[in-house]
Formats: sequence, C-alpha cells, structure tokens
Amino acid sequence: MIKIAVDCFGGDHSPQANIEGALAALATLPELHLILAGDEAAIRADLAGRSYDESRVEILHAPDVIGCDEKPTDAIRLKRESSMVKAVRLLRDDDTVSGMVSVGSTGALVAAALTRVGRLEGVIRPAFCPVLPTMNGGVVGICDSGANMEVTPDHLRQFAIMASLYIQNVYGVERPRVALLNVGVEAEKGDAVHQEAYQLLKQTESLNFVGNMESRDLLSGKYDVVVCDGFSGNVLVKTTEGTAIELLRKLKKDVFSRTIYKIGAALMKRLFSDFKSFMDYQNYGGSVLLGTSKLVVKGHGSSNALSVQRCIEQAYRAELGELGRKIETEILKYDHYEQ
Amino acid sequence: MIKIAVDCFGGDHSPQANIEGALAALATLPELHLILAGDEAAIRADLAGRSYDESRVEILHAPDVIGCDEKPTDAIRLKRESSMVKAVRLLRDDDTVSGMVSVGSTGALVAAALTRVGRLEGVIRPAFCPVLPTMNGGVVGICDSGANMEVTPDHLRQFAIMASLYIQNVYGVERPRVALLNVGVEAEKGDAVHQEAYQLLKQTESLNFVGNMESRDLLSGKYDVVVCDGFSGNVLVKTTEGTAIELLRKLKKDVFSRTIYKIGAALMKRLFSDFKSFMDYQNYGGSVLLGTSKLVVKGHGSSNALSVQRCIEQAYRAELGELGRKIETEILKYDHYEQ
Repeated sequence: MIKIAVDCFGGDHSPQANIEGALAALATLPELHLILAGDEAAIRADLAGRSYDESRVEILHAPDVIGCDEKPTDAIRLKRESSMVKAVRLLRDDDTVSGMVSVGSTGALVAAALTRVGRLEGVIRPAFCPVLPTMNGGVVGICDSGANMEVTPDHLRQFAIMASLYIQNVYGVERPRVALLNVGVEAEKGDAVHQEAYQLLKQTESLNFVGNMESRDLLSGKYDVVVCDGFSGNVLVKTTEGTAIELLRKLKKDVFSRTIYKIGAALMKRLFSDFKSFMDYQNYGGSVLLGTSKLVVKGHGSSNALSVQRCIEQAYRAELGELGRKIETEILKYDHYEQ
Repeated sequence: MIKIAVDCFGGDHSPQANIEGALAALATLPELHLILAGDEAAIRADLAGRSYDESRVEILHAPDVIGCDEKPTDAIRLKRESSMVKAVRLLRDDDTVSGMVSVGSTGALVAAALTRVGRLEGVIRPAFCPVLPTMNGGVVGICDSGANMEVTPDHLRQFAIMASLYIQNVYGVERPRVALLNVGVEAEKGDAVHQEAYQLLKQTESLNFVGNMESRDLLSGKYDVVVCDGFSGNVLVKTTEGTAIELLRKLKKDVFSRTIYKIGAALMKRLFSDFKSFMDYQNYGGSVLLGTSKLVVKGHGSSNALSVQRCIEQAYRAELGELGRKIETEILKYDHYEQ
C-alpha cells in the first residue's frame, strides 16, 4: 500500500480537478491509497455520484485554504487549518503516508515542506525538478527550477545526484545523461560557480555527466537531466512553455486568416491536436521537490484532472522506486558543506 | 555619410554572406559607406561580377581570421592582422567610422571592443541587446544577453537606460515598456539584487518601468525591453530560439507521417513559410553591444546575407538616431558606481 495525501484546494479548478484526478490515479494504481485534504463537506459533495473504491480513500478535514497572493511564511503560520498545512503535517506525523501533492501556492508549499517535513540526511537544499517532453519522445528533468535563487557548486552537485536518481527511478532511464546549464559548451564558460561545478560534476562517479548544455538544446533529446540555479531553471522552463504557447496561438490565428488554410488545417486536425497535447504541460505532471524526507509534488495552479493524476503517479512511482532512500545513500557518499 | 566597417570573415558563410549582405544594405541605405575588412584578394574575388556603387566601398586588407575556438584574449593580442582586430582598430582610430559589424567569435569581439574601443562616458558595463519578434508584430530587446554574468542593481539600471534608448531610436518605439526579468511579477520576488533593482528602476524617471516579467511572457508583446543579467538573458534568448526550432522541426516531421497531412500542409504552404520566416532569427539582425563609445553589432555565426544586411541597418539607424550621444546624456543624469 502506498499512501499519498492530496491537497484538494488552492488551484484554479479546485476541488473538482483535484478529486477527479485523484480518483483517476486510484483506478489505475492498485497499491494507491488516497488521503484527500480539504473541507470535508465540499469533498463529499464532489465525491457523491462518482464511482471509486471507497476502502482506499480517506478524508482529512481542513476548512481553510491558502491563496496564491498570501505571504508564504505568514500563511503557513496563521492558516493551520488549511488543506495544505494539514496535509504537510500529516506527512510529517504519519509514517504510513509517503508523499503529497498540491497545486496551491508554491511559496507556501516550499516553506511548509522545509520547516515541517525536513530534509533527507545530507541534503543541503531541496530543489524543484519539473520535466519537459523532448523531441525523441522522452523527458528532460530541470533541477533546480525555482527553490534556490543562489547556489554553490556543491548545491549543483546535489541537484544533479537527486535529479538523476529521480529520472532513473520514476521515468526508467538508465544512467541519465546529466548536463550543466551554461552559456556555452566549453568547460571554462560562465562564472566561477559554473566553472567549479563543471569540475565537481565531472569528478562525481555516480553521475553520467556529459558537460555543459546551451539552453537552445533543452528539447533536443540529448540530455535527461539539466542542472542549474533556481532562477535560470525557472527562466528555462517558463520560456519553453511560453514560446510553445505563443507559437501555437499564432499558428491558430494565422489559420483563420484564409479559407484555404482552414481547409488545410481541417485535414491536419489530428496532427494539430497531437501536437498541442505533446506541448501541453498538463500531460507531464508536476514539479517534484527533491530532497525533503518525504516527496512533495507541486502541480501547476491551473492543473486539470489529468495533471493532478500525473502528479500522484509521480509521487507513487517515486515511493515504489524507493527514491528517498537512494538519494540519501548517494548523497552521503560525498562531503557536503552547509553554506 | 555614415561609415560602417564590416568584418568579412569568421562566420559559417563568410565571406560570401557578409559581402552579399553588405552590398544589399548599400543598395537600400543612401548615406551608407562600407569598409570591408578581410583578405583583399578574397574580397575582390567575391566582389567581381557584382554590381554596386564602388565609390562607397573601401577594402581594409587583413589577411588573418580569428576562429571561434580560439581563446578570446590570446586571439586579439596575437592576431593583430585579423579582419576583426583590424576593423576594431579602425573603429578606434578613425573618427569618420561610426560602427562595425562582425559575425565572428563573440568572446574575441567583446574583448576587442572593451579594450580597444572603450566605453561611453558613465557606462560601467557594456551589454548585449538582441531583439526577438513578438506576437503583435513588434520586437522585444533583451539586455544583457551574455556580456556580464554577474550584475548589480546599478548595472541593471544602465542596461535598462541603454536598451530603452536603443529600442526607441532604432525601432521607433515611443516610451518603450521596460520590464525586469524575474521569477514572478511581485516586487519582492527574486534575490536581493532583483529586489533592489526593482526599486531602482521604479525610481528612474527616464524609464517607463512596468515591473517584473516572468519569462513565459517574453513574446506576448506586453514588453519592449527586458532587463536581466547576462546568464539569464542568454538562457532566455537561446531557449526561445531553441524551442521554436525544435517545434518547427517536429511539425515538419509529423506532416510527413501521413499522406492526408501532406495534402493539408500543401494547402498551408504559404502559411508555414511565413511562420518559419517569422521565427527565423536571421530576419532580426544581430545583437548590439550597447555602451561602447562606437556601436558594435554581433551577428550570429551562422548569419546569411539577410542577417548581415540587418546588422548593418541596425548600426546605421543607431548612428542616424545619435544613440551614443543620447545614452551618455541619460546615463550621466544618475550616479553610477564602479563595482
């Protein structure tokens, strides 16, 4: 049995999308047990009429919700009865619960996870690792993508170890090819932190480090893990998503400008729909916070049911692959200094 | 008369593309005078048979070429007879020459420009400002995109002033909307440098500062100038280009998978061609190095003739708009500290 807590509130389509996604995951993952956190009456009202295995679903009553515009540290301190904080506290206190999923405020979730759940032994800084689809049908993990604005070479090595194990154990990639995000491929590119990190990654035996990556190659399929500071990683992920969205929007607008284009597009309807689905981040689940003692998955605020389902699958597969234990084992092989 | 020096070597399609692009610019810009730097015999051989106004073209003989794999500081010190170094020296020594264009090694060009040409009065750090097309048919300038890996709030303010004047005077945008690249739109996002920079930009009267920008909005058309450190800017620009290229490649591949798609695509041929051209960086010229006492434009190493032509137009329009003088005037209104 793998127990996952789901924060049912805080997203644009909550609680419906959260509950629908959770039940979809329940239907496909035989060992899954769900704890749905949030206002009990609202959850029961949404569950009513849905068909699912009731013996594998519990409700954790939490009447309050943290909004995206609230100051993270205040929110988690003052809203102790919120669905997010109660789910995080359950994660901390209940040994049988392995992970949690939330689509609520990122800042509040990170603050709650770091202060309440704590870190795996040896981990200096937990880091976010979302995945994006690559052109050869695989995925690439980007770590960190927003939890740490400033990093040291040592932090970057830990991100590499954690993300490499994540991609290996959750996506089944053997010896993930790990790259360091930089402004050029040569070892001496970037500032001192990047130059040192390059050497450190090269010396780390557990890693299949393949060198620096320029951001234009992110989707090429040549890399399975890209390591970077949280600011650059955030830029990398959001620029990719933004460019894809804007280009699709332009293509759609252009199609409607002439009748012959509309006819052509009608013949290519299936292709466009597959293309759109390929680029839709909802299909790729959430951003996993690697390095906390239990796994926390952050879904987009705009997550639909499919996206929530994928987030739960990520937490489930991570637990099945014993990701936390493996991260600790690898991290503890190297000296790490708090900085 | 506006005299621009063109480094005819160092690119993937040099010297043909450089010379063809230079002559195309000559044909459309009546005041333009060209100085073509490079091996005289090779340039004369390429010019032979082409029709152009010979009275407006000079050749600066330079038998050597700097390769992209050479160490920048060594290259500019040792290869004094290279087309790039001779063009830069001409820029320094000849008051009648207003700017130069090169598609050669970025590192060598920056090193040569900073050490030989020098900075405008008051400018702490020259910075690169490429432009990308936006969805409403305009452009957005990104400054810095690679010359300065680490920056202070003061640097960022200077980038904002320079890029704003560039977009205004070269692209005709009145009161360009300037944004600070950050991980969220709220004023308190990012590290201390970003928080301070936000306040500094807000207080700078010459600027039309509109707040933080998340990278997913780069192409939205809501911003004319985005200010950032050179590392993030590099990621921003290359991720956008890379995503566009990979998506177009995938679309093309998918089209060939079924006959009906090929028929549909045939009807949309013109649309796809316009779409490709819209995203083709060759149409948008080069990355201008703002803040040197004379303007240096860096084109892509893979520049074709059109791209070289656009680079020359950028240098020409900057001189016509008296960009250098305007930058000095604005920069000197504020205290700046060397750091």
